[in-house]
Amino acid sequence: MLTSIETSLPADFIINSIGIAVFAVTGVLAGAKKGMDLFGIVVLALITAFGGGTIRDIILDAPVFWVENFSYVYIAIIAAIAAFYLQEQFWKTYKPLLHFDALGVALFNVEAIDKTLALGYGAEVAVTMGLITGIAGSIIRDVLADRPNLLLKKEMYATPIFTGGIVYVTLLIFVPQLGLINAGIGILTVFVIRVAAIRWNITYPKFMQIPE
Amino acid sequence: MLTSIETSLPADFIINSIGIAVFAVTGVLAGAKKGMDLFGIVVLALITAFGGGTIRDIILDAPVFWVENFSYVYIAIIAAIAAFYLQEQFWKTYKPLLHFDALGVALFNVEAIDKTLALGYGAEVAVTMGLITGIAGSIIRDVLADRPNLLLKKEMYATPIFTGGIVYVTLLIFVPQLGLINAGIGILTVFVIRVAAIRWNITYPKFMQIPE
Amino acid sequence: MLTSIETSLPADFIINSIGIAVFAVTGVLAGAKKGMDLFGIVVLALITAFGGGTIRDIILDAPVFWVENFSYVYIAIIAAIAAFYLQEQFWKTYKPLLHFDALGVALFNVEAIDKTLALGYGAEVAVTMGLITGIAGSIIRDVLADRPNLLLKKEMYATPIFTGGIVYVTLLIFVPQLGLINAGIGILTVFVIRVAAIRWNITYPKFMQIPE
Repeated sequence: MLTSIETSLPADFIINSIGIAVFAVTGVLAGAKKGMDLFGIVVLALITAFGGGTIRDIILDAPVFWVENFSYVYIAIIAAIAAFYLQEQFWKTYKPLLHFDALGVALFNVEAIDKTLALGYGAEVAVTMGLITGIAGSIIRDVLADRPNLLLKKEMYATPIFTGGIVYVTLLIFVPQLGLINAGIGILTVFVIRVAAIRWNITYPKFMQIPE
Repeated sequence: MLTSIETSLPADFIINSIGIAVFAVTGVLAGAKKGMDLFGIVVLALITAFGGGTIRDIILDAPVFWVENFSYVYIAIIAAIAAFYLQEQFWKTYKPLLHFDALGVALFNVEAIDKTLALGYGAEVAVTMGLITGIAGSIIRDVLADRPNLLLKKEMYATPIFTGGIVYVTLLIFVPQLGLINAGIGILTVFVIRVAAIRWNITYPKFMQIPE
Repeated sequence: MLTSIETSLPADFIINSIGIAVFAVTGVLAGAKKGMDLFGIVVLALITAFGGGTIRDIILDAPVFWVENFSYVYIAIIAAIAAFYLQEQFWKTYKPLLHFDALGVALFNVEAIDKTLALGYGAEVAVTMGLITGIAGSIIRDVLADRPNLLLKKEMYATPIFTGGIVYVTLLIFVPQLGLINAGIGILTVFVIRVAAIRWNITYPKFMQIPE
C-alpha cells in the first residue's frame, strides 16, 4: 500500500482553509449574476468550495469533511460575504486571484490524494479523487449559474491537476523516502502548468481539439 | 447532544407524505415543458420530491429514506400523474398551491433537522440539512428543465427555510422542555416568512443584491 | 427475498465492459462541442459511462464499482479516445451505434437489477436502480454539454428500460426456476422496444404529452 506524507493536523486545517476561502471567493466572482441576492451567492460559493470534496468523500464512503469540521463552512461564508462586498476590488486583482486559485487547487489535489491513499485506495483512484476535488465544485457552480463549464473550454484547468496528480503518486511509488519534498513537487507541478496556461493561453494542439 | 421532538412514526409518515406530494405537484407545474411526455414529467417530479432528502441522507451516510420506505415513491407518482392531467385546475389554484408548498417546505425542514440531530450530528449540520432537503430537489429540477433556479432569483425561498432552521435549533438548545411547541414555532417561522415573501414580493434590500 | 441469476464473474465483467465502452462512445458523439479539447471530452465520456452506476452504488451504500475495479475506467478512456479520432466514421455508423447503445442499456439494466437484489433490496428498488443506471449518466452529460436531456424529449429512451425492468423482476418472482432465460427476456424487452422506438419514431400518444 502506498503511504502518503504525514502532515500534522494543523497543517491540514490551514491548507484546506486556504483552498476553501479561495474557492468561495472565485465562486462569488464567477457565479454572481444580475438579480441574485447575498443568500443565493453565499450558497453558490459554498457549493463551489465544498462540491468537489463532498463528492470525493461520498464516493470513497468516508465521512464528509465539512460535516466533521463545520469551521470550514464558516470560513467559506466569511470569504463569500467579503467577496460580495469587495467585488470591484477583487476584480481589479483578478489575475493575482487566478494565481491564488491555482495554488488552492494544487494544495487541494495533494490533500485529496493523501486522504484517498490513507483510506487504503490505490494510486489510480487517488489521482481521480484529486481531479474530482479540484473541478467538480466549479463545474456544478457553472451549471447552476448557467455559464459554460470548464469541460467546454479550451483553457487548461483540469489538465494541470491531473498531471500534478500523476507526478505526485509516481514520486510516492518510486521515492517515498523523500517525504514532504514529493508533496512540494506535486503542488509545484500543478501550480506551474496552471500559471503557464493562464499567462500564455496554452491550449491543447489543434489535433486534440474539436475544430471551430 | 441535542435531542429533537419525539414524533410518532405515523406522524412522520403523514408529514413526509404531504411534503412529497406537494413537491411532486410543483415539480410537474414548474418542470413541464412543450414536447415532454408523461414518463419524463413523472421522473422530473420524483427528482423534485426526492432530490433534497436523498442528498441529505447520502451526506449523513444514513439509509436513503425512499429506499427504506418505497410507499413514498408511489405517493409521488400518483401526485405527479394527477398534476399532469389536472394542470389547468392546478394553475388556477397556483397561489393556494404556493402556500401549500410553503407548508410542505416548513414541515420538511423540521423533519430533516430532527432526523439529523437523532443521528448524533450537531445543530449547525442539522440546519444545513434542513436547507439542503428544502431546496436541492427544486434546483436540480430547474437545471434539468433548463429554467433559472432559485439561487438566481430575488424571490425569497431559501431564506425562510434557513431562518426557521436557526429558530428551531435555538429553541431546542434553550427551551428543550417545550417539546412539540418548538417544532410548531419552527414550522410557523418558515411558513410565515415564505408566505409574506410571496404576498408582498419581499426581497433582500438593494445593498444585499447584485444590481441589475 | 428475490434472487437474481447467477452470472459468473467473467460474464459480469464482459457485460459491464461492453456497456461502458458503448456509453463512452455515445458520450463523445453526443457531448462533443466546438472548442472542447480531448481532456474535456474524455471526462465527459467518463461521466456518461459511470454517472448512472455511481449514483446507484451511492444510493445503495455499496462500494462504487469503478473504484473497486479501475480497469473499467481504462476501457472507457480508450473507447473515448478512439471515438474522438474516429468521430466521422462513428457518425456514419450512428444508426448501428444507436442499436448497440440499446443493447448496452439493456445489459446494464439487468446487471443493475441483479446487483440491487443481491444486496438484499426489494423488486421496486431494483427496477428503480436499473432505470437510474441507464439514464443518469446521459442526463448529466447533456446538462454539462448544455443540450436538452432525454427527459425533455419525446423519443423513448427511459420507458424501454423501465418496462424491461418490470418484466424482468416479474419473471424472477413468478418463474425463478427459468434462470438465465429470465435475464434474456429482460434484455430482449428493453432492446426490442428501444429499437422499435428508434426505427418508427414511436412516442407516447398525444394525451400523454404536453401539447406543442
